Amino acid sequence: MRALRLLEWKSGPELVEVPDPSPGPGQVVIKIAGAGACHSDLHLMRDFEGGLLPWGPPFTLGHENTGWVHELGDGVRGLSTGQPVAVYGAWGCGTCIRCRLGVDSYCEDPAGAPVPSGGCGLGLDGGMADFMLVPDARHLVPLPEGLDPVAAAPLTDAGLTPYHAIRRSREKLTPGSTAVVIGVGGLGHLAVQILKATTAARIVAVDSRPEALRLAETSGAELALSPGDEAAERIRAATGGRGADVVLDFVGADATLALSAGVVRSAGDLTLVGIAGGTLPFSFFALPYEVSVQTTYWGSRPELTEVLDLAARGLLTTACTTFPLAEAVEAYRRLEAGTLLGRAVITP
Amino acid sequence: MRALRLLEWKSGPELVEVPDPSPGPGQVVIKIAGAGACHSDLHLMRDFEGGLLPWGPPFTLGHENTGWVHELGDGVRGLSTGQPVAVYGAWGCGTCIRCRLGVDSYCEDPAGAPVPSGGCGLGLDGGMADFMLVPDARHLVPLPEGLDPVAAAPLTDAGLTPYHAIRRSREKLTPGSTAVVIGVGGLGHLAVQILKATTAARIVAVDSRPEALRLAETSGAELALSPGDEAAERIRAATGGRGADVVLDFVGADATLALSAGVVRSAGDLTLVGIAGGTLPFSFFALPYEVSVQTTYWGSRPELTEVLDLAARGLLTTACTTFPLAEAVEAYRRLEAGTLLGRAVITP
Amino acid sequence: MRALRLLEWKSGPELVEVPDPSPGPGQVVIKIAGAGACHSDLHLMRDFEGGLLPWGPPFTLGHENTGWVHELGDGVRGLSTGQPVAVYGAWGCGTCIRCRLGVDSYCEDPAGAPVPSGGCGLGLDGGMADFMLVPDARHLVPLPEGLDPVAAAPLTDAGLTPYHAIRRSREKLTPGSTAVVIGVGGLGHLAVQILKATTAARIVAVDSRPEALRLAETSGAELALSPGDEAAERIRAATGGRGADVVLDFVGADATLALSAGVVRSAGDLTLVGIAGGTLPFSFFALPYEVSVQTTYWGSRPELTEVLDLAARGLLTTACTTFPLAEAVEAYRRLEAGTLLGRAVITP
Amino acid sequence: MRALRLLEWKSGPELVEVPDPSPGPGQVVIKIAGAGACHSDLHLMRDFEGGLLPWGPPFTLGHENTGWVHELGDGVRGLSTGQPVAVYGAWGCGTCIRCRLGVDSYCEDPAGAPVPSGGCGLGLDGGMADFMLVPDARHLVPLPEGLDPVAAAPLTDAGLTPYHAIRRSREKLTPGSTAVVIGVGGLGHLAVQILKATTAARIVAVDSRPEALRLAETSGAELALSPGDEAAERIRAATGGRGADVVLDFVGADATLALSAGVVRSAGDLTLVGIAGGTLPFSFFALPYEVSVQTTYWGSRPELTEVLDLAARGLLTTACTTFPLAEAVEAYRRLEAGTLLGRAVITP
Repeated sequence: MRALRLLEWKSGPELVEVPDPSPGPGQVVIKIAGAGACHSDLHLMRDFEGGLLPWGPPFTLGHENTGWVHELGDGVRGLSTGQPVAVYGAWGCGTCIRCRLGVDSYCEDPAGAPVPSGGCGLGLDGGMADFMLVPDARHLVPLPEGLDPVAAAPLTDAGLTPYHAIRRSREKLTPGSTAVVIGVGGLGHLAVQILKATTAARIVAVDSRPEALRLAETSGAELALSPGDEAAERIRAATGGRGADVVLDFVGADATLALSAGVVRSAGDLTLVGIAGGTLPFSFFALPYEVSVQTTYWGSRPELTEVLDLAARGLLTTACTTFPLAEAVEAYRRLEAGTLLGRAVITP
Repeated sequence: MRALRLLEWKSGPELVEVPDPSPGPGQVVIKIAGAGACHSDLHLMRDFEGGLLPWGPPFTLGHENTGWVHELGDGVRGLSTGQPVAVYGAWGCGTCIRCRLGVDSYCEDPAGAPVPSGGCGLGLDGGMADFMLVPDARHLVPLPEGLDPVAAAPLTDAGLTPYHAIRRSREKLTPGSTAVVIGVGGLGHLAVQILKATTAARIVAVDSRPEALRLAETSGAELALSPGDEAAERIRAATGGRGADVVLDFVGADATLALSAGVVRSAGDLTLVGIAGGTLPFSFFALPYEVSVQTTYWGSRPELTEVLDLAARGLLTTACTTFPLAEAVEAYRRLEAGTLLGRAVITP
Repeated sequence: MRALRLLEWKSGPELVEVPDPSPGPGQVVIKIAGAGACHSDLHLMRDFEGGLLPWGPPFTLGHENTGWVHELGDGVRGLSTGQPVAVYGAWGCGTCIRCRLGVDSYCEDPAGAPVPSGGCGLGLDGGMADFMLVPDARHLVPLPEGLDPVAAAPLTDAGLTPYHAIRRSREKLTPGSTAVVIGVGGLGHLAVQILKATTAARIVAVDSRPEALRLAETSGAELALSPGDEAAERIRAATGGRGADVVLDFVGADATLALSAGVVRSAGDLTLVGIAGGTLPFSFFALPYEVSVQTTYWGSRPELTEVLDLAARGLLTTACTTFPLAEAVEAYRRLEAGTLLGRAVITP
Repeated sequence: MRALRLLEWKSGPELVEVPDPSPGPGQVVIKIAGAGACHSDLHLMRDFEGGLLPWGPPFTLGHENTGWVHELGDGVRGLSTGQPVAVYGAWGCGTCIRCRLGVDSYCEDPAGAPVPSGGCGLGLDGGMADFMLVPDARHLVPLPEGLDPVAAAPLTDAGLTPYHAIRRSREKLTPGSTAVVIGVGGLGHLAVQILKATTAARIVAVDSRPEALRLAETSGAELALSPGDEAAERIRAATGGRGADVVLDFVGADATLALSAGVVRSAGDLTLVGIAGGTLPFSFFALPYEVSVQTTYWGSRPELTEVLDLAARGLLTTACTTFPLAEAVEAYRRLEAGTLLGRAVITP
């Protein structure tokens, strides 16, 4: 079959022929419907190198995948051939308490996982190919009726990641509360929709790009602001001076973290999702009392089920541009050039 | 001033002249904007009698009240004359832990309250008058901007009661869950709107009246059903056989409780709000495992703040018919005759 | 190997020779260390009959099991031969959301499970044998260091069941709260210890047997009472008139349910664990406002891990009498006669 | 009456005569039983100066107070003369949602409070006097039976502050979890006792003083360690490599924050209580995924009730040295010199 692979660190991906995968006991091979292309793939190609990681190329790219069950390994129950599925992409050891609860993203025994610290398309072969081997049937989540498998692919990361960040803060997102979304890109515009669908919080979006602010407004934001000197003041004014109950930073630069710290309410949440590399100096008087500051990374399998339900009911929609597998290299080129509308999805 | 009072048990209300109230220390007098007329007032007039209760007539009716601050007693802080307010109507002792948390509805020392087991319009003088004495300033919740004081009156009970019942079940109302609302009347149609605004649960409404089912659908229900032999089957089918995560029974008859028990999912919630007097025989195998069965009564002061926020933002709308105080007797007559569209609100 | 089997409904168990089990893909065979004998086994032998259930004899008894990993099937990871393990005994379909979270006890697709509605020793072969086939490796929980495998066997049911019932009520078991345990038998005396170890609630125990009340006191109860006319009054007095925050009924007769309803606090929990077959007529005014009434059944795999940790640290101790497998029939005879001290554990 | 007052910034306290206080509407005067002396008082005397704060000297010291109700202002209900009470010391505006829930410590309208950003003994007159004016009856919490009023005084801060920090993390403090307490001083040794009484978490204590480590062990710590190169390794070893679920830093220096970050588990809590002024640079890869980092400050009134209940039942004991009011200056001198055993309590 064909597969878009990273053959060595610091190189571009190549479309090559590889043997068709075959499932061992407990494993499943799926036929790919869609595989999302993500900025973190560019990061993987450009910025990593041998020696730093215990795993490495060659491997097939693609960590946002959907498809149809193609072949079941021995002992697999509860799935049938042809069934449409999403692939939960964080693959942990399967036996620690985190994996037992479906939170492979926080696996506590990565050395016991199929690939240490990895996941599909991030060391193990991902979904930018005709077929994909899923090393444990538990990673497959059936697609609900009415959900297009191709459009669903980005939900497994670009949808799941903000969903997890929002869901963990749900107790603070009561009617009367305010949520601030900083960075209205692939994840951020889904964050606005998720907030709108699952809470009655007021939503404030912050982005420097006018078209991102328009997208935020059509997605459900009540207030859409450019960053800058007045953003903090306007958010404070919009919250009666109290500040925002939850701030989600999908950028993660020094400046966005500083803005986050400047607008969050005492006992609120400041959640860092973006990996722009910024630092927030935390000390006793740096933030209002009992603001919780944390990162989040990806989400859990039960949460992926909930994300898919939202999308199947029309409450969550991702803008996508599709590319055949033969043009996957071009998709990454346009992703890097910033000329894509929405998420690129490769459709073998 | 004028006041619509119950002068003795088992009689109709009468509009009479009474002295204007004057606030003692910590108390407030408000000028009434709206006072909702509720079926439970009819129950109060028709079905109670002397000797059963430690309190009784004469008193002014009206437990759903809004208005403007008219006069502040000594020591009251944080309120100013003319400010629009809603009255939280469950008046407890003020010192037990429940009252301290704003849950006067579950006061644990009713003998220590101004009137044992009572509340405004339910033993103490209520709001169907030109002015009303509020015996503790803590019962006043400022109205948010943009909310019409008259339309807000029914929110203090018909909005707050379903809000509390839904909020306590919020952990079970995740995306993918199903909520069933039985009885789409004054409280039930607000329950549907509250579920829609604050959760992504699928909403199923059950009522025997076609116009109530239409109201449920315009309020956000995905499925609206008549009770009867097929209702349970259709709800099971709509939930993939699992049953509903949360069932809210706003009727409370034997038949609606039996339907509730027949459609609720294991580990779900079955909440009885309606007081039609039905019984559900609870035993080990009568319901799926770990279904929680409970009543709820009214709600808390912090929850009232949240209800008002939903309404101010247009997420919660009550159909109202207004009557001047001089026609309040007529309003109750039409309420009893069933010829009213929506909630009757008396506007002095 | 030898196995204590129920050969037909309404008969006594027999010790017979059966072939040694062999693990298929994903399965594990364990060498049994201990298998607890439970009153529900007597119920199974005496009261069930053909036609009522989709499964039936012959099968090996024993649903409270511990042992050592003996043989691993293909594809099993994270376990090694000789490792001491406890068997989580509720075996669900493995693919519904409940099973995915380790709550097989509330499996929503029992028809998809290895045996419909069953579990080990309850239709599938249990642990009263030299070896036992565990049909999915996920059912094995490693024993922590310092925990005797024989003494640990009853924890998988007699420990896990009260643990789950208590854990779900933890939010109500704050300092200053009161928990009432009705029935201080195999599960009840562990309930008292679990409450003592994991909360600061006051513990009240109710039992008609003086030795059970002494056991309750040495296990951590502050007050130990006989049921009867004064029990409710004394509990109310001990709680300042408020009633108990959580009542756990390990008997489940009409009388114990009535006592439970008579002492529970508004917004408290009344949890029915015992299967004596009683009924509580639930209606709007039958209980204080918002008391949650529910059954619980068994517990979850993550909870079993927590129970084992408590026991390994000496916070949870079960009184046991051990019997060799050859005397298992005698163990059940003494269990039925009521002449056993503590839990009977069969040790092949 | 006599009162120990701070007469100007950067001076020592002086015992002077002042007029007896008299209660206005809603206020209460109490006769002081005990008033705790706290290191933060030294900070207040030494490090503050005019111009920085909107309030200032002269005022009476003492923010940890207990006593007996002496005189009730108009409109106060639920208290009687002579009743022993603890004073909740954080005095907010009384009308914001935080104050309404008894969390004055996080008041959102400090400008609306009796003294901006203050509290008793921190701008308003505190309890180091014969009598004390409590400006709102809601700040008084009745002492439970069996609790010595003098010994209870430090519980209002040194007990309440760690209690709040622990209670907010209770969901992570399951059996099998580990809590690390850094700094076993006035607050830290109570933190160990609170963890022991209310959870089944393993407790690890870290302090550089041998006598503090002994105190930690007698208070319930399973492991007591000096800080230094091996502390992090030993904590990791004691948790099977996973790290601690909750770390409470009662010191708050750069070094203790770095140790905290080095031992906390993914999705754990790192809570900063101590005000030594250290900084933790927070960024995406600085801590395990989703570690929540936050400060806490004091606690809530309902939590104070729970702390008092623990103490009344013997589950929480503070080492105290008592001083008559005439020797209060000496108490502070010894506090500063570090020659005190336990907490100094002034007893007029």
